[in-house]
Amino acid sequence: MHDPIAHLNADKSARQERLMELLRIASVSADSRHAGDVKLAAEWVAERFRSMGLVPEVVPTAGNPIVYAESPPVPGAPVALVYGHYDVQPPEPLELWTTPPFEPTLRDGNVYARGATDDKGQMLTHLEGAAAWLAGGNGAGDGLPLQVKFLIEGEEEVGSANLEPFVQENKDRLACDVVVISDSSQFSPGMPAITYGLRGITYYELRIRGPQRDLHSGSFGGAVTNPAVTLAKMLAAIMGDDGRVQLPGFYNDVKPLTDGERAEFASLPFEDAVFAESLGVDGLTGEAGYTTLERRWARPSFDVCGLWSGYQGEGAKTVLPAEAGAKFSFRLVPDQDPEAVTASLESFLESLKPRGIEMQLIDHHGAPGVAFPPDGPFISAASRAIEEAFDAKPVKIREGGSIPIVNTFADQLGAEVLLLGWGLDDDNTHSPNEKFCLADFHRGAAASALLWRELASLGQG
Amino acid sequence: MHDPIAHLNADKSARQERLMELLRIASVSADSRHAGDVKLAAEWVAERFRSMGLVPEVVPTAGNPIVYAESPPVPGAPVALVYGHYDVQPPEPLELWTTPPFEPTLRDGNVYARGATDDKGQMLTHLEGAAAWLAGGNGAGDGLPLQVKFLIEGEEEVGSANLEPFVQENKDRLACDVVVISDSSQFSPGMPAITYGLRGITYYELRIRGPQRDLHSGSFGGAVTNPAVTLAKMLAAIMGDDGRVQLPGFYNDVKPLTDGERAEFASLPFEDAVFAESLGVDGLTGEAGYTTLERRWARPSFDVCGLWSGYQGEGAKTVLPAEAGAKFSFRLVPDQDPEAVTASLESFLESLKPRGIEMQLIDHHGAPGVAFPPDGPFISAASRAIEEAFDAKPVKIREGGSIPIVNTFADQLGAEVLLLGWGLDDDNTHSPNEKFCLADFHRGAAASALLWRELASLGQG
Repeated sequence: MHDPIAHLNADKSARQERLMELLRIASVSADSRHAGDVKLAAEWVAERFRSMGLVPEVVPTAGNPIVYAESPPVPGAPVALVYGHYDVQPPEPLELWTTPPFEPTLRDGNVYARGATDDKGQMLTHLEGAAAWLAGGNGAGDGLPLQVKFLIEGEEEVGSANLEPFVQENKDRLACDVVVISDSSQFSPGMPAITYGLRGITYYELRIRGPQRDLHSGSFGGAVTNPAVTLAKMLAAIMGDDGRVQLPGFYNDVKPLTDGERAEFASLPFEDAVFAESLGVDGLTGEAGYTTLERRWARPSFDVCGLWSGYQGEGAKTVLPAEAGAKFSFRLVPDQDPEAVTASLESFLESLKPRGIEMQLIDHHGAPGVAFPPDGPFISAASRAIEEAFDAKPVKIREGGSIPIVNTFADQLGAEVLLLGWGLDDDNTHSPNEKFCLADFHRGAAASALLWRELASLGQG
Repeated sequence: MHDPIAHLNADKSARQERLMELLRIASVSADSRHAGDVKLAAEWVAERFRSMGLVPEVVPTAGNPIVYAESPPVPGAPVALVYGHYDVQPPEPLELWTTPPFEPTLRDGNVYARGATDDKGQMLTHLEGAAAWLAGGNGAGDGLPLQVKFLIEGEEEVGSANLEPFVQENKDRLACDVVVISDSSQFSPGMPAITYGLRGITYYELRIRGPQRDLHSGSFGGAVTNPAVTLAKMLAAIMGDDGRVQLPGFYNDVKPLTDGERAEFASLPFEDAVFAESLGVDGLTGEAGYTTLERRWARPSFDVCGLWSGYQGEGAKTVLPAEAGAKFSFRLVPDQDPEAVTASLESFLESLKPRGIEMQLIDHHGAPGVAFPPDGPFISAASRAIEEAFDAKPVKIREGGSIPIVNTFADQLGAEVLLLGWGLDDDNTHSPNEKFCLADFHRGAAASALLWRELASLGQG
């Protein structure tokens, strides 16, 4: 019987050469001077699918093409969808690179190049993991123990504007049980991670208007409502001294952390003091009763992202400003509803609005948090695959940020999403000297190959 | 016996011509192209003193000259010092002037020109009021019933940087019992005013620093203290919901309004609704228990003058900002001590400072409030003089802003300051089409002449 792991072991140097080839293509999606390179990268990915025995489609969009391929259906097995991207961040500032960004170079067991970890290297692991199975098939796409669909886009670094419409319009074609994404990091070196939850967000802009023009703070101060003071009081009222958001009903739908989750987070090598020092602060604050990781990953939060009013220049200007404004966000967790948060916020702020003030609340965007069952069959399958490939049981973590495409896959396809990061925190993603550990590249390919086996073993979902 | 009022009546057209002459000089202190005109205006003022029989001195400074003159001492009478300025604001934008700013033009009983009310016209009334007495003397400076000193500067519109040092260095020469300044407005047309109090100020900049760089609000929000939220909470804490400043001890030294003051303010034609509408607001707020005029003139206040933090551009940026800052002021009333306010503020903010935050409080400047006894002999003398000249008893008011030179005169010379405004609120001070009512120019000159009589009648202070 065909052994995909043996195939991977035999194919190691060829696999590495393929990675180097793809990394030589300067597929910078933000820079129109690289439009040709972007197309070249899409073609390279399509050609790789062809060499695996699949029949890819390079789908034109209003922006850069989406490369799509799928293996044949396997009755009785779940369907997996791999998402990744072939475009990369701009490499500038070039003078800070030790070796040129599009001349991939090996140093200390790493490959240095723009896109090495984000996302060419990580994305390729799944093509290679599938190729290892397909090599045992009939050369026409057979050989995988389950159907795998590949959706590789070229606009992730510029906002993925054309991806969500594509998913919406191709729900049947993309139908799957589980989505696999490797575009993030391990918890720490030697400690791979499965990210099973992300926070959601609601983002607002609040504009406060008082008098029709800036006034002299001497002649008018004390009698005319100050928009900047009003803004400060509104923002301050949102956040309680215990670090809890004060909007009525805000915590009603918050799904509590389970004892298992809290135990898992507590077992992770994370020290508040080290974390604080890395940020240059003398201590941390947050919601009472929760650890730092719990606060970052699985509890809602409130942050002011921007503030403006009146005079911001040098020295003193004695003005009672006509306007003040703020941008702020709530990070949400399951099962908070962004629209319910907005409604509560609106009536809360309205209740605080003093005479002499007009208020405008702009709802910039919102997305709910997501969390998949950490002990569910898909995550357990991924855990077994990763443990075998990395020789380390992966930790199960959550992330504080949002990944809009995860919401899209969950909402549009009703699929569970596996976030399997093979990178490391010091990979210099989006910075000069981006790198990817070659051993992790190969371990990721093995984990992918084993993931197909483990998922197939679950049978029909 | 010489009658100065009869002299003023006979001299009316010549007096008006002198005003027109001075207004033709484009003495714009902010514009170096007008340096020659500024010198010319100083010379014109000096020449006018000479023609009155005084011996002026044009004192060079690091900036524009100060013109100084004094009449001889009069034993048994108090000494008065007139302060005014011969420089003017820039006239731009020129296209908005109906007639050119330095071609004074009569329309509807007003003279239109830059500097007409601020301060050439008002300043001249006191030279003319003294000249009316000196015309009855021996031509060598005798004839006034008290000693009058004149201090006319040329840098008021650019900050008076050289005036305070001059006052400090010439305390003996400038020694006086009362300072007379006409550089402001009547309460309303036909209702002249004596301003007997000004608020003081302390002005601060508060800088809040958190993490050493801007952070992703998703990955860090809820665990890292947000500088913008901290700033909002600090500013909000300063201002109570009752409109009272919450700093410990802030009101300890506040001199209460007397029943007489409250009655006088209440008698003035002032309507909250009209005032609010003129500012474009639907209502007013302020310290509970006080009227709008009391809040503006005689109660301390807190205003945020500027705010900044994080992202102020279009759309959404999900950042936990590294820094936030604010500029804010307290308006002070007698007998609050700016230094005590600063000390209380510092410890108040320190007590609110959470972990993970560094704070810097910059004290930009401070000056105490001033208020002279509204029923004291000098103000009563001025009131009699004005009532006779304007045929209307002046109202006694206060002002919410600060006039630094008033503090200088009060502190350095120990003198009481009479603020006698002959202008009107719609005089377009600092704007195109500045004007001064000619009848008020002549009434002001008469009031000045009568003031010298009334002050002299008080005898030695």
